[in-house]
Amino acid sequence: MEAGGADVVSINDVAARAGVSRQTVSNVLNAPERVADTTRSRVEDAITALGYRPNTTARNLRRQRTRLLGLGLLGGDPDWTSTVINRFIHALTAAAAEQQFHVLLVPRGDDPVRTHLELHESGTVDGFALIDNEPDDARVQALADRRVPFVAFGRTHIRTPHDVVDVDGAAGTRDGVAHLAAQGRRRLAFVGWPEDSLVGEERLRGVREGCVAAGLDPAELEVVRRPNTIAAGAEAAGVLLAGRRPPDGIVAVSDTLAIGVFRALRGRGLMPGQDVGVVGFDDAATAAQLDPPLTTVRQPLVAVARRIVERIEVRCTTPDADHVRELIAPELVVRET
Amino acid sequence: MEAGGADVVSINDVAARAGVSRQTVSNVLNAPERVADTTRSRVEDAITALGYRPNTTARNLRRQRTRLLGLGLLGGDPDWTSTVINRFIHALTAAAAEQQFHVLLVPRGDDPVRTHLELHESGTVDGFALIDNEPDDARVQALADRRVPFVAFGRTHIRTPHDVVDVDGAAGTRDGVAHLAAQGRRRLAFVGWPEDSLVGEERLRGVREGCVAAGLDPAELEVVRRPNTIAAGAEAAGVLLAGRRPPDGIVAVSDTLAIGVFRALRGRGLMPGQDVGVVGFDDAATAAQLDPPLTTVRQPLVAVARRIVERIEVRCTTPDADHVRELIAPELVVRET
Repeated sequence: MEAGGADVVSINDVAARAGVSRQTVSNVLNAPERVADTTRSRVEDAITALGYRPNTTARNLRRQRTRLLGLGLLGGDPDWTSTVINRFIHALTAAAAEQQFHVLLVPRGDDPVRTHLELHESGTVDGFALIDNEPDDARVQALADRRVPFVAFGRTHIRTPHDVVDVDGAAGTRDGVAHLAAQGRRRLAFVGWPEDSLVGEERLRGVREGCVAAGLDPAELEVVRRPNTIAAGAEAAGVLLAGRRPPDGIVAVSDTLAIGVFRALRGRGLMPGQDVGVVGFDDAATAAQLDPPLTTVRQPLVAVARRIVERIEVRCTTPDADHVRELIAPELVVRET
Repeated sequence: MEAGGADVVSINDVAARAGVSRQTVSNVLNAPERVADTTRSRVEDAITALGYRPNTTARNLRRQRTRLLGLGLLGGDPDWTSTVINRFIHALTAAAAEQQFHVLLVPRGDDPVRTHLELHESGTVDGFALIDNEPDDARVQALADRRVPFVAFGRTHIRTPHDVVDVDGAAGTRDGVAHLAAQGRRRLAFVGWPEDSLVGEERLRGVREGCVAAGLDPAELEVVRRPNTIAAGAEAAGVLLAGRRPPDGIVAVSDTLAIGVFRALRGRGLMPGQDVGVVGFDDAATAAQLDPPLTTVRQPLVAVARRIVERIEVRCTTPDADHVRELIAPELVVRET
């Protein structure tokens, strides 16, 4: 033990007494569900015996915490799924306030990696929430390499350990297929994004799993892939409806494409929800306003935002805590399709 | 003059030598267009003669500037006009970066006034951009009363002096009417919001002015007012089309209501842009994706954001600078309606 001061028992003392690594003590404090019961008991006994108290305030002071979280803005078109981004910004700001953080918006700039690193190195922010990540996102790679506290909202191909919190898209589309199957729909189709989208491929996987669960042959699922525009959705649905086996149920990878599906159905005198079931994804602002209102998968953004802020706090206070990869299930909002 | 230091000539010295108030010197530095030419020359001569240099860095240090701007989030439904808010958030973040600021999101919380005041009193932010202001906005009143640096994006009924930067909505709808009149439309209608919206009333004023400019009698303009939903827009257009004098041109106060107008026209076998001209407002993400693409008024959010950041900087460096009330003209985006 070090001499002097009130906070003299260190995490290393606890680890030594319990016969475990410092990492394990850190896990007991921050992610106890990850530690075997017997180990956890031993560590908790050592904590009690030594009177160890993790001192968050002192830790914050030592690390010069600012309690600002950087939120990297979307790299692309700011209009893209703006309902979801807008809701997420609100949810993150509220979750941050609950946990004594504020959110700072990180400008895109010419060199996003440098912008993020400078904000951290200058002590402006404690860490980051990264959204709209690309499969090989340079920001994710750079921050993970340098062990900067951050959480990626959305998965990438990057293997360097880092925290990920994401929506369980497959669970959402599985629920969508179950909804269509419960209406007696048997000839299902999926209007998806091009194959380079990890998010889109996961939603397709959920559709296939949903088919199996409903006793439908996933090999008979019609899949068309289009960019995320209303016109492309209409064109895709037109191709499906003119095909050899016109669908009676369509899952769209986004509400934008689902709106296009509506347009194609209406243009052929077919009624969404009666002649053909339709399920979207996102619960965009327009989904409830369509005629008829669209059944869709609502992203659990409040839960995602809370979990992101919790994990950033863990990373700031316990840099060697295990990394997590968490999926949060979305909710099917059943309307009239 | 004070003794010692390099920055010994003060703004008061310049004012005394030029025989003007300190305020006037401040205006010459920050808003020269507001000062008569002869006065400006006299102040500029005094500045040159005394070698006065406003020292921004020293001023920032004295005032403990953080170069963080607070952005108060929308009070209401985060889905409301999310395209516009999303674009504005991007524009403000970029404009702030250009002027060495960062944007901090202010949570709504239970008591927005107290949240804003505490963020300023604690030195967390230098000032605020306030959006989605209500006619008697308590935040605007409280910050104006306490002379906290802020700019309101959007007007209110509050008379305590404060800086306002806003979109010239009347200019936008005037352009919309000119567009319809140029197509030969003579029987115009306006689908607006309830009368308690200052923004909505201004857009209606522009429609009336546009009628006069086009040689139409504004007394013959049909006006219906509805809440901002697609269904309400469809219902409103239905009322107009079933009326004594069905319109051949409709200006909607928002793209959301314009989408409803489309729905009503299509439901009656009428083609937007051919049978009835339609102009929206906002250039929401869906406007370009409608069939046919919607002619609408695009808000000049990049220019608004830049001007807001400039004015916050002025207020931080020169608290007694005159307040401004600036309107920035939007752009009519002509598509197929």
